[in-house]
Amino acid sequence: MLPDALSGRWYNSRTFDPDDPWADFAPRSAAVVLVDLINWQAHRAGFSARVASGDYKTARCENVVVPALARVLAAARDAGAAIVHSRLASRAVDCADIVPALRAYVRAAEAWEGNWAAEPLDGLYSPGDLVVTKSGSGAFGSSDLDQVLRNLGVRTVLYAGVVTDRCVLLTAAAGFDLGYQQYLLTDCTAAVTAGDQAAAERLIGGYLARPVTAAEAVRAFEAG
Amino acid sequence: MLPDALSGRWYNSRTFDPDDPWADFAPRSAAVVLVDLINWQAHRAGFSARVASGDYKTARCENVVVPALARVLAAARDAGAAIVHSRLASRAVDCADIVPALRAYVRAAEAWEGNWAAEPLDGLYSPGDLVVTKSGSGAFGSSDLDQVLRNLGVRTVLYAGVVTDRCVLLTAAAGFDLGYQQYLLTDCTAAVTAGDQAAAERLIGGYLARPVTAAEAVRAFEAG
Amino acid sequence: MLPDALSGRWYNSRTFDPDDPWADFAPRSAAVVLVDLINWQAHRAGFSARVASGDYKTARCENVVVPALARVLAAARDAGAAIVHSRLASRAVDCADIVPALRAYVRAAEAWEGNWAAEPLDGLYSPGDLVVTKSGSGAFGSSDLDQVLRNLGVRTVLYAGVVTDRCVLLTAAAGFDLGYQQYLLTDCTAAVTAGDQAAAERLIGGYLARPVTAAEAVRAFEAG
Amino acid sequence: MLPDALSGRWYNSRTFDPDDPWADFAPRSAAVVLVDLINWQAHRAGFSARVASGDYKTARCENVVVPALARVLAAARDAGAAIVHSRLASRAVDCADIVPALRAYVRAAEAWEGNWAAEPLDGLYSPGDLVVTKSGSGAFGSSDLDQVLRNLGVRTVLYAGVVTDRCVLLTAAAGFDLGYQQYLLTDCTAAVTAGDQAAAERLIGGYLARPVTAAEAVRAFEAG
Repeated sequence: MLPDALSGRWYNSRTFDPDDPWADFAPRSAAVVLVDLINWQAHRAGFSARVASGDYKTARCENVVVPALARVLAAARDAGAAIVHSRLASRAVDCADIVPALRAYVRAAEAWEGNWAAEPLDGLYSPGDLVVTKSGSGAFGSSDLDQVLRNLGVRTVLYAGVVTDRCVLLTAAAGFDLGYQQYLLTDCTAAVTAGDQAAAERLIGGYLARPVTAAEAVRAFEAG
Repeated sequence: MLPDALSGRWYNSRTFDPDDPWADFAPRSAAVVLVDLINWQAHRAGFSARVASGDYKTARCENVVVPALARVLAAARDAGAAIVHSRLASRAVDCADIVPALRAYVRAAEAWEGNWAAEPLDGLYSPGDLVVTKSGSGAFGSSDLDQVLRNLGVRTVLYAGVVTDRCVLLTAAAGFDLGYQQYLLTDCTAAVTAGDQAAAERLIGGYLARPVTAAEAVRAFEAG
Repeated sequence: MLPDALSGRWYNSRTFDPDDPWADFAPRSAAVVLVDLINWQAHRAGFSARVASGDYKTARCENVVVPALARVLAAARDAGAAIVHSRLASRAVDCADIVPALRAYVRAAEAWEGNWAAEPLDGLYSPGDLVVTKSGSGAFGSSDLDQVLRNLGVRTVLYAGVVTDRCVLLTAAAGFDLGYQQYLLTDCTAAVTAGDQAAAERLIGGYLARPVTAAEAVRAFEAG
Repeated sequence: MLPDALSGRWYNSRTFDPDDPWADFAPRSAAVVLVDLINWQAHRAGFSARVASGDYKTARCENVVVPALARVLAAARDAGAAIVHSRLASRAVDCADIVPALRAYVRAAEAWEGNWAAEPLDGLYSPGDLVVTKSGSGAFGSSDLDQVLRNLGVRTVLYAGVVTDRCVLLTAAAGFDLGYQQYLLTDCTAAVTAGDQAAAERLIGGYLARPVTAAEAVRAFEAG
């Protein structure tokens, strides 16, 4: 690891304090960004659970992610933060608007805007939240998320979603280079295996986004 | 003006021929991009007609743009080109997702996704068309239009819409720097006055997009 | 024009005051962005003057733009603002890094990085200024200008350069959709004819960037 | 893993063949993108080796990456592919153009354009190569790399560089969402430990970029 003097604004923090992750947290310029917490990706009856990545991810979403995240979202809304749902879904009959590698996958999942597959998991969406549709893996790279956050005046982002070492990682990666101050809500994310989850937290926590728990985030929003 | 040798790929044409605007036109890698041809911007009962820019624009949309563009769209769909509707509309109750300068304007127009205000003018939309929502003036600068066109394999764009010297200009301007080969469908665009329209055609036609008529475009799609 | 209530944040002003263009001006989060004020574009012995657009533009640069802008730059540097020079220039022997439409033009001008053609006009550059190389017409669309300005903490941009209704317009157009609060330094810009200059000021002044003079900007930087 | 039918264009391949990674490889629309193979990041006397990540990375660069990559670059140049060096370096005295989290790090490394620190490792650069300067971690997210590749007509990218699970990963991640067909030159990349390298190859190889060796790439360029 680098000496403290060189990693002093790690995660694009304005005033980095290794002992206080929330030193300069301002809820009104923060957003919780949800990545693919939608039925085809994260519901036990969804496409992903049926054909690809199995029980661990879905069970973690149901038992850990949704209850923890619901508390974060409630606190965030109360504190005046923005909530943005990003979702991999198509607007074209043949899914030709989707990045080539993922096109057959999205089509097989029937993840068109308006379908159940593309809807947020129960308990996460509330009127007033924003929804952006992404055509690829990372939300910044494949939707207008950055433009929306700029207009909202957001400077700080907390990430939740699936899959931790795929779409969540790609979103946090791009957000880092865009200068956002970043947090990873560790217990609001899920990977395909527990090992992948641990590796992803370590990787993202390296310098991209500061790992925090949902409980810590709730306290920060309440204190803000 | 520049010598021919220096302007030989003007409008990002691959093989520029001053006598044949369609020398290398390939309908299957082309898209017609509509800019703000939606009710609040272009309908005679829409917000813009009521408070701001008056009769010329609305009448031109009704009498010239819609009939001419409908023919282009039919030919384009038959030829396998993509149709993308871009529209200035909000996804947030308070319109805070809109670029600051236009926020009050969009809110006063009640141009939320799902409202009549944000719907395409009658006669332009067909199932299979794509719709992108923009948060600002230019469609490339304020939506995910570029990502969608890349995924669709589009290299050539034909522009239609309002206002010629505002949102249409900004869209064609950004498309130029993105390397798209570009056409302006002159009689499928409208400005606030006839003088503004003429000036905008001259400006855009300078190097950004080749001015063509709807009738010429129809023939090109049919020949493609 | 729109009622005041609807154009109340025109030019992305945070607090728009029709009588005070500088109501919320903060020099330390401002940048002066120069567009193509480089030898091949704006010097009387440069390529552009030789082959294309003639005496008016070059004479205006020499007699009006450079002296006025030099005063703005001095005041801006004293006030802690950033200065960014953007320039259309190539980094490739065959200019294949340039947008197709402009490739032959840049090559004929011998506008490679390091050549006299690509250097700023005398009297404008000072150590500490930043330089970005653009591969197309608009500086946001064809360089990393936005990333640089974000990192610098810039929220307000003042534009100078050539050609007012081409590269300057395209830069201000994209900056608008990116949410920057914007000013056009009218007497620090030049077009090919006086008529084009007047039309461009009207067009850009419509909603993209607030037209101000160099003298007004100097006072604002000194007051800041 | 997904059924073949759903991962059939993995890595954005146009015609994915699990047994032939080079089925549709076209050298003239390909580029080798080098990430941070510059002295302060990868040389044994460079800043990174001195203060942060130690012997494994530097030794691997010297003994494995540079010799293997030099062969790839020679074959790529002969085949008409583009070579683009991307490097984390500053153009500002105070490094304020760098993304906040990395600013102190770049400044301590004295990685300004023109310094030895910011120069490519010996044996990698050749006249005719392109160089882009990045202000953050991922080359697409923090430089004009995408614009340059678009103008060059590049559709396929092969990645080399350091650090495999940081700047290389972020670059490949963004390139994926931009639709590039992607390869990871495994023995032309280095991480801080052998374990990190293996994990990064597995992560990137999951769907972002197809892992291949330098020897395989040389054969593909020679066959192209």
